[in-house]
Amino acid sequence: MFDISGLTLEEKASLLSGHDDWYTEAIERAGIPAIEVGDGPHGLRKETGVDMVWVPATGFPTASAMGASWDRDLVRRVAVAIGEEARAEGVQVVLGPGVNMKRSPLCGRNFEYFSEDPLLSGELGTAYVQGIQSVGVGSSLKHFAANNQEIERTRISVEAADRTLREIYLAAFERVVKAADPWTVMCSYNRLRGVHASENRWLLTTVLREEWGYDGVVVSDWNAVHHRVRALAAGLDLEMPGAGGVTDAEVVAAVKAGELDESVLDASVERILGLVARSYPGPELVNGPVMDLGVAPGDRLSAEQLALLRADEHHDLAREAAAGGITLLRNENGVLPLDPHKRIAVVGAFAAHARIQGGGSSGVDPTRVDNALDALAAEFGDRLAYAPGYVHTPRDAYQDDIAAYLEAHGAAFTDDGTGPARRSAALAEALRLAAAAERVAAGPLSPRARTLIDDAVEVARDADVIVVFAGLPLAFEQEADDRTTLALPADQVELIGRLAGLPAPLVVVLSNGSAVTMDPWHDRADAIVEAWLPGQAGAGAVADVLMGRVNPSGKVAETFPLAVEDTPGFVNWTGERGTVLYGEGVFIGYRWYDALRRAVRYPFGHGLSYTTFAYGELEVDVVDASAGVVRVSCTVTNTGPVAGREVVQLYVGDPDAAVRRPERELRGFDKVTLDPGASARVTFDLVSRDFAYWDVAVEDWRREGGEFVLEVGASSRDIRLRASINLPDDPAIAPLVPDEKLLEFTASRFTEGHR
Amino acid sequence: MFDISGLTLEEKASLLSGHDDWYTEAIERAGIPAIEVGDGPHGLRKETGVDMVWVPATGFPTASAMGASWDRDLVRRVAVAIGEEARAEGVQVVLGPGVNMKRSPLCGRNFEYFSEDPLLSGELGTAYVQGIQSVGVGSSLKHFAANNQEIERTRISVEAADRTLREIYLAAFERVVKAADPWTVMCSYNRLRGVHASENRWLLTTVLREEWGYDGVVVSDWNAVHHRVRALAAGLDLEMPGAGGVTDAEVVAAVKAGELDESVLDASVERILGLVARSYPGPELVNGPVMDLGVAPGDRLSAEQLALLRADEHHDLAREAAAGGITLLRNENGVLPLDPHKRIAVVGAFAAHARIQGGGSSGVDPTRVDNALDALAAEFGDRLAYAPGYVHTPRDAYQDDIAAYLEAHGAAFTDDGTGPARRSAALAEALRLAAAAERVAAGPLSPRARTLIDDAVEVARDADVIVVFAGLPLAFEQEADDRTTLALPADQVELIGRLAGLPAPLVVVLSNGSAVTMDPWHDRADAIVEAWLPGQAGAGAVADVLMGRVNPSGKVAETFPLAVEDTPGFVNWTGERGTVLYGEGVFIGYRWYDALRRAVRYPFGHGLSYTTFAYGELEVDVVDASAGVVRVSCTVTNTGPVAGREVVQLYVGDPDAAVRRPERELRGFDKVTLDPGASARVTFDLVSRDFAYWDVAVEDWRREGGEFVLEVGASSRDIRLRASINLPDDPAIAPLVPDEKLLEFTASRFTEGHR
Repeated sequence: MFDISGLTLEEKASLLSGHDDWYTEAIERAGIPAIEVGDGPHGLRKETGVDMVWVPATGFPTASAMGASWDRDLVRRVAVAIGEEARAEGVQVVLGPGVNMKRSPLCGRNFEYFSEDPLLSGELGTAYVQGIQSVGVGSSLKHFAANNQEIERTRISVEAADRTLREIYLAAFERVVKAADPWTVMCSYNRLRGVHASENRWLLTTVLREEWGYDGVVVSDWNAVHHRVRALAAGLDLEMPGAGGVTDAEVVAAVKAGELDESVLDASVERILGLVARSYPGPELVNGPVMDLGVAPGDRLSAEQLALLRADEHHDLAREAAAGGITLLRNENGVLPLDPHKRIAVVGAFAAHARIQGGGSSGVDPTRVDNALDALAAEFGDRLAYAPGYVHTPRDAYQDDIAAYLEAHGAAFTDDGTGPARRSAALAEALRLAAAAERVAAGPLSPRARTLIDDAVEVARDADVIVVFAGLPLAFEQEADDRTTLALPADQVELIGRLAGLPAPLVVVLSNGSAVTMDPWHDRADAIVEAWLPGQAGAGAVADVLMGRVNPSGKVAETFPLAVEDTPGFVNWTGERGTVLYGEGVFIGYRWYDALRRAVRYPFGHGLSYTTFAYGELEVDVVDASAGVVRVSCTVTNTGPVAGREVVQLYVGDPDAAVRRPERELRGFDKVTLDPGASARVTFDLVSRDFAYWDVAVEDWRREGGEFVLEVGASSRDIRLRASINLPDDPAIAPLVPDEKLLEFTASRFTEGHR
Repeated sequence: MFDISGLTLEEKASLLSGHDDWYTEAIERAGIPAIEVGDGPHGLRKETGVDMVWVPATGFPTASAMGASWDRDLVRRVAVAIGEEARAEGVQVVLGPGVNMKRSPLCGRNFEYFSEDPLLSGELGTAYVQGIQSVGVGSSLKHFAANNQEIERTRISVEAADRTLREIYLAAFERVVKAADPWTVMCSYNRLRGVHASENRWLLTTVLREEWGYDGVVVSDWNAVHHRVRALAAGLDLEMPGAGGVTDAEVVAAVKAGELDESVLDASVERILGLVARSYPGPELVNGPVMDLGVAPGDRLSAEQLALLRADEHHDLAREAAAGGITLLRNENGVLPLDPHKRIAVVGAFAAHARIQGGGSSGVDPTRVDNALDALAAEFGDRLAYAPGYVHTPRDAYQDDIAAYLEAHGAAFTDDGTGPARRSAALAEALRLAAAAERVAAGPLSPRARTLIDDAVEVARDADVIVVFAGLPLAFEQEADDRTTLALPADQVELIGRLAGLPAPLVVVLSNGSAVTMDPWHDRADAIVEAWLPGQAGAGAVADVLMGRVNPSGKVAETFPLAVEDTPGFVNWTGERGTVLYGEGVFIGYRWYDALRRAVRYPFGHGLSYTTFAYGELEVDVVDASAGVVRVSCTVTNTGPVAGREVVQLYVGDPDAAVRRPERELRGFDKVTLDPGASARVTFDLVSRDFAYWDVAVEDWRREGGEFVLEVGASSRDIRLRASINLPDDPAIAPLVPDEKLLEFTASRFTEGHR
């Protein structure tokens, strides 16, 4: 579509860095237009002409909520909607999804990631990319790779073993790249084994392109490029944002000096021109859903237009999506669903002003925000009483906090468009404020907090049921910062404990984007509903679940530990002196807790329903033992009184391996919808890779022959069906030396004497 | 004393490898005698003329028992005695002590090491080296370094961070080298970061010689040399055992080819000649204690002579040493000491045939072996009943097991003196037998085992008190093999449980060289006495403690965990494909359990007494804040009815550090002896290093200014006194950039935008 041969060296170099924050460079004389990119991935975040002021868009649930849905189709439909809004606003590439692993629940950006498991993350990431790209909008799979903490993220070097990277930290990316071909892949800020991701040739070229066959564009995270020429040589096509031409000149000079082969630059230019071609497709794709609305690419919908044309529909989808992820963690004595004829006390400021999303680049300016108080008032009328219980500033979007702070301090946000100048004293102050908020939340309680708690207890005293909305303030979950505790703020902990002392049953509704601890109140709560950060329509979804209009079907995509000290990698978190050792290896998430036989609060895959499901009729068909093709199927039956949805999980274990492997690893999942009494047959097809580990001795995946355990469960610790099979060594890979371990054992003992 | 200038290149090279297994090369024409080395370190293990048949010697408690004594003087006196026996036998260097860290309780050679803590190991290692060298016998500090597992020990590569090595795995070696100047240091078998210890210049030269100032001989572990020239260049002076001249020729060829500078070889030769000089001292040292017996160096004592002249005295010392390490883990309702007027049931084959030591190079042929059954029969007479309870083969020495196996199978042990030929099929079979023994011990129980248990329960039914001797069979604890479980054999577990069901109080006496788990019987045992592997006189010491003639004063030098999955490094143990990642970093032993807030069975430093001790009057004197000199003192009072000994422990914590540090680290200890009502003032002098961590940014020790917590305790989890002080940054080291963490935090957030 575009011809590279007519471009000068300087023109080609100019295509390799952004024009500014949000646009690539255009070359008018060659008819090459700019591409507009917009933040994501939970909704479109497109900057207006004013710095850090954003076009309204639908705020969908964040990735951790979507992860808990385990619902590929739901994720795909959300991504389609985001793509439609992007097209309406002329944005050609949305920066997401994020498929990094949740190495620790303390990572402040976990709310932007799906899961602690690479299969689940990879499958949902695939659904997202396929969805958004199906409407002609590109995705940016991020952050590649091993960006698992926010503290020191621009310089921390991840020291992780090959097997750890391959099986855990690269696996979700591999799955999405191979299955969905994202238009772009975004490199991460961090270093990997000493080399920045932006300059890491092994990562960007050897693995991504040569092994996985990726031929799209690799874009930098914003200002992640430290040495433009090295980055280009490593495989980093597009530097973002613009660098005022400085780095373009560096590229030109390097080519002229013979330090960079022009063919390297040409290859990147070709890939960028390919992205441009995808972004400005022919008429057949332009006749997509957005075109039905009469809007051409490049045009922009006004907020009013958007609201008129799609906002209601997308809000409804956001509500459905939130409901899909809401997870019923606990429900003693059938306290849920609620009886609308009872007197209800609604406690918690989050009920009136919902927590919908996390802070940072994914924060959208929502088209509207529901709240649970209104939704429940519509059900209970004057049988509802409300008390805030704690202080919550009803500003949810990250930039609002900063803007309000600046306003209060009479400071101005200045930005000349180059990276370093963004570091302003005013913003540093805002961050100190956020840190201070976390310290305040750790207690001790202020007199004001105590008064609010006392008032709430009084309000709740006469209720038949108490529903308390709790969770994490925005300051706890935002980009560029990690949590220091897994606990809720001290005032909320005190509030819940006090409410639990009242005679009425207590329902706790949580809003948080990553696992929290629940001491000391957990056992005294009759029901716990994990609403995550459910987006702008989440409050309605919560009401749907509380009232039983929606039967909850979410399952946690991340383990809820009992204590922060139990978490994987705790002693190494967050590294020191620029290096973080992934000392726990492949054992993150449930892999860690299972290996250490550690009790947890809620295991990976756990979630209750208002109905019950029976599992049976397990069949294991070894279709081709040599090729490692195995079909596993079972029957799931709704044995309860209402329709419901169940996430059926297949785990595989390899107890015979020559290396220490996780006790079980997720290798398949499906979400089925069943009327009362109805059954469904669920089938999983496994291939050799599903049994394999990364063998550093052969630098490849190895399926080691022997016994494999197949487990089908309702969670990773609620295994309902179990079988084992024997498979031979993968014939494509040289088998292990027979008795290698024994020979080593013997030889080590006697070849060197005995001291 | 010896002149190197008169030696030919070939002669010099010949000095750099052994003559055979036990002798260095002599050069008669130059008057250079051979040195004889002997195994250790728990007693002399000197081979007779017959392969794997050993000269009788006193078998002292193994290192883990000595570690539990926390008694520098006791260790020193034991080492003196071993040195005396070595001199009597003409052995000039004894191969020990071992000061490796107990990274995991599963390591099969832990019984040969003192502790999981580098200070305690280093202090006791120093006492040992000073003791044995005080009588003119050299030591060999081993195994340098990071040899913390036996499986794959000859090829495993330890991947450990600098800080982990410096603070944990090198620290005990550093202490001993600097304080006691061991005549030799023995390199380990393993690789460190890919390079065998024998060829690791960073380890053998940069750290050991250049940083620590060591000028003695570095000797290889037996057959640990893989490339003689590279090893020599790295700093490995003496290859053991002999290689038939093959490697000498390699050295000569390398020098002639210009690949090895002759000065490197000369330096090693000088060091070996220095060792020869130390081994054949002038008349003044020859008039040492052994000479009092009229025996000249090079002469050999017959076993009869030894028995006549020293065996009784050394046996008594062995009993005292064993008593010093015996640790009273539990004593409910004052069941101990025993009342000699009661009826006692003694159960357990170990009572009749004591477990005294572990398997491998440290196994001595004891001059005699006591047993607890005889000792207790002397107390209780016909009020004692005995039942074996389980099968135990009364062969304790490693070589006896092999010899018996060979005899039974009509096989012969052949050894032509070169390493590889030692690998014989017969020996491999013996090892398979040992592995089979471990599997049998894991259960299920055989009919024979059940009968023995039933019989024991019948014998114990009418007793007033039951004492059961339990622990680990030899097969569980030996060189070249690691344990696969922390549990006692299944038959012993069943036996103890059954005995606990009887009405009489139950005392469990354990013999094991490393921590064991105690489920499910622990809470039902009234008393638990940890006797370790207490050497040939240990049974008498056990009786002394049980009867109250000796008030126990041992404290565990290693944490007893609740389960193997709780142990540090569990997910990485024992590595894979030739590499083991020390993913837990500095957090081994109590450092791990404290960091993870993990409950343990018995914490590091725990041990009870028949009396009680009060701690008070803590004084902290910051003598020189800038230099980090602090004096800590307190008063310990015997508040109970009998005389006793208390191990007072000082821990330091650094909660303010920029790196994650252990909550507390042992920085001082003292063992005091107190009559009832008596008090003693205990004083610890701390220096800057005691507050410092290894800072990878400056590649040096850094005392970072801020608060330090000083804790004095009776164990790591029984802190009695606490104070905190503030110290400034060590002025010798550049201070941290002020607010470095905050600046990083801020910059990371805003210099790169927000996605």
